Amino acid sequence: MTRYKLILEYDGTDTVGWQTQADGVSVQSLLQDAIFQFCKERVEVVAAGRTDAGVHALAMTAHFDLEKEAEPETVMAAVNFHLNSAPPFAEASGGRPVSVLACKRVDENFHARFGCRMRRYKYVILNRRAPVVLDKNRVWWVPRPLDIDAMRAAAVRLVGEHDWTSFRAAECQGKSPIKTLDEIKIISGAFQSPDNCALRDFRDDTIIFEFSARSFLHHQVRNMVGTLVEIGLGKPYDIDEIFTAKNRAAAGPTAPASGLYFVGAEY
Amino acid sequence: MTRYKLILEYDGTDTVGWQTQADGVSVQSLLQDAIFQFCKERVEVVAAGRTDAGVHALAMTAHFDLEKEAEPETVMAAVNFHLNSAPPFAEASGGRPVSVLACKRVDENFHARFGCRMRRYKYVILNRRAPVVLDKNRVWWVPRPLDIDAMRAAAVRLVGEHDWTSFRAAECQGKSPIKTLDEIKIISGAFQSPDNCALRDFRDDTIIFEFSARSFLHHQVRNMVGTLVEIGLGKPYDIDEIFTAKNRAAAGPTAPASGLYFVGAEY
Repeated sequence: MTRYKLILEYDGTDTVGWQTQADGVSVQSLLQDAIFQFCKERVEVVAAGRTDAGVHALAMTAHFDLEKEAEPETVMAAVNFHLNSAPPFAEASGGRPVSVLACKRVDENFHARFGCRMRRYKYVILNRRAPVVLDKNRVWWVPRPLDIDAMRAAAVRLVGEHDWTSFRAAECQGKSPIKTLDEIKIISGAFQSPDNCALRDFRDDTIIFEFSARSFLHHQVRNMVGTLVEIGLGKPYDIDEIFTAKNRAAAGPTAPASGLYFVGAEY
Repeated sequence: MTRYKLILEYDGTDTVGWQTQADGVSVQSLLQDAIFQFCKERVEVVAAGRTDAGVHALAMTAHFDLEKEAEPETVMAAVNFHLNSAPPFAEASGGRPVSVLACKRVDENFHARFGCRMRRYKYVILNRRAPVVLDKNRVWWVPRPLDIDAMRAAAVRLVGEHDWTSFRAAECQGKSPIKTLDEIKIISGAFQSPDNCALRDFRDDTIIFEFSARSFLHHQVRNMVGTLVEIGLGKPYDIDEIFTAKNRAAAGPTAPASGLYFVGAEY
């Protein structure tokens, strides 16, 4: 038995999310099917984060075990090949929504989900009057101006250990609502230098939220962003009051999945 | 008569390019139709650059004239509204490929094409083994490693006044093949800092070419990039010999449209 660690990029737009479900295409099932095509073994691929439908990953960590031994290079090439030939995402129909960026052998003690010490997400907002074009399905378009300073002041109060009941989905299966948010960063207007940014330079219309925590509850990031945007629009939300209420209705709406990215996992 | 200047973002993927043609959807015709919907005037929209099918724009400058007077704010909102309701790009089918970022009244002497003193393009390559996912239709995927230093050394020799016969398309209608390329920059590995880049941080797999000139010949940028990539892959192309040959066959292949962006026009 050999355990492999994968780093994955994926576009969640046309998927039901990470987790395999009765209907629809999941990132997990696409990978498991590609691995089966490669080596005829039915494996379970375990990820650091089980992202929702529409949520993307820049570098998701996952692991799985193979009975047969294969070089990590071969595994990566074969899985990418089979991902690409699987309907409905064959090259002809626009290409695959998942790509293996890296693969290596790991110790059998490595566990992508339970061993993860820190997870990082980012959320990207396009804040301009003009509708989205090049960033379709990659951002949340907020056409009204946002008060960044007000959002920053509120964000500071989200950091730390809290009861997140007001920020988690009703269907959240997390055992405890008590979690620690280690860091929030809000970055804006940093896209002016052609030396630094590729597709996005000459644009000061993007706002990025970065979140780091050991773990997150269901919809926690999107509910934090939805609340911060309400504050940025001038609504009288108070973060401390929202925590105290322990009621989902006390916080703002859930931000759309399209702007959310799983950025990385640390072990 | 009032002249309006527009700044446009567009996704060239599903268009025949800027210029209206017998078949297919052009950026120009989408705009002209949206303007007609708004004010029932049939206008010609003139752009700084007539980009090909599949080529994108981050900030294309264009102009047109209206008999009726309307506030630039109103023009922008109305054109964006009608762009969005035009088949086959209505919101339900995934959204419009063109967006008006800015609109203002200009002097009747302003001409988006003939008044342009400097045009800037960029070309984005994703240089990694793993196939493209999030940047589908936004980059050229080159899976083999590129020698950046070799490309930089060759790029320097493209700058200046030359006879570009070897780098222009057979069907190019430019009167003279003599043009001056003012600047090329090659940027790579600049995506490591989360403070600087949104979607692309933690990625050192992107190479950006930036080009500035008063004007470019047909396919000139894509032919320069195609040649530089051949050099990056170790092929024995010599820039001076290519210029001397005055023969399109002497240079490398035409790089795909998907990686090319019109970045801006100066007046």
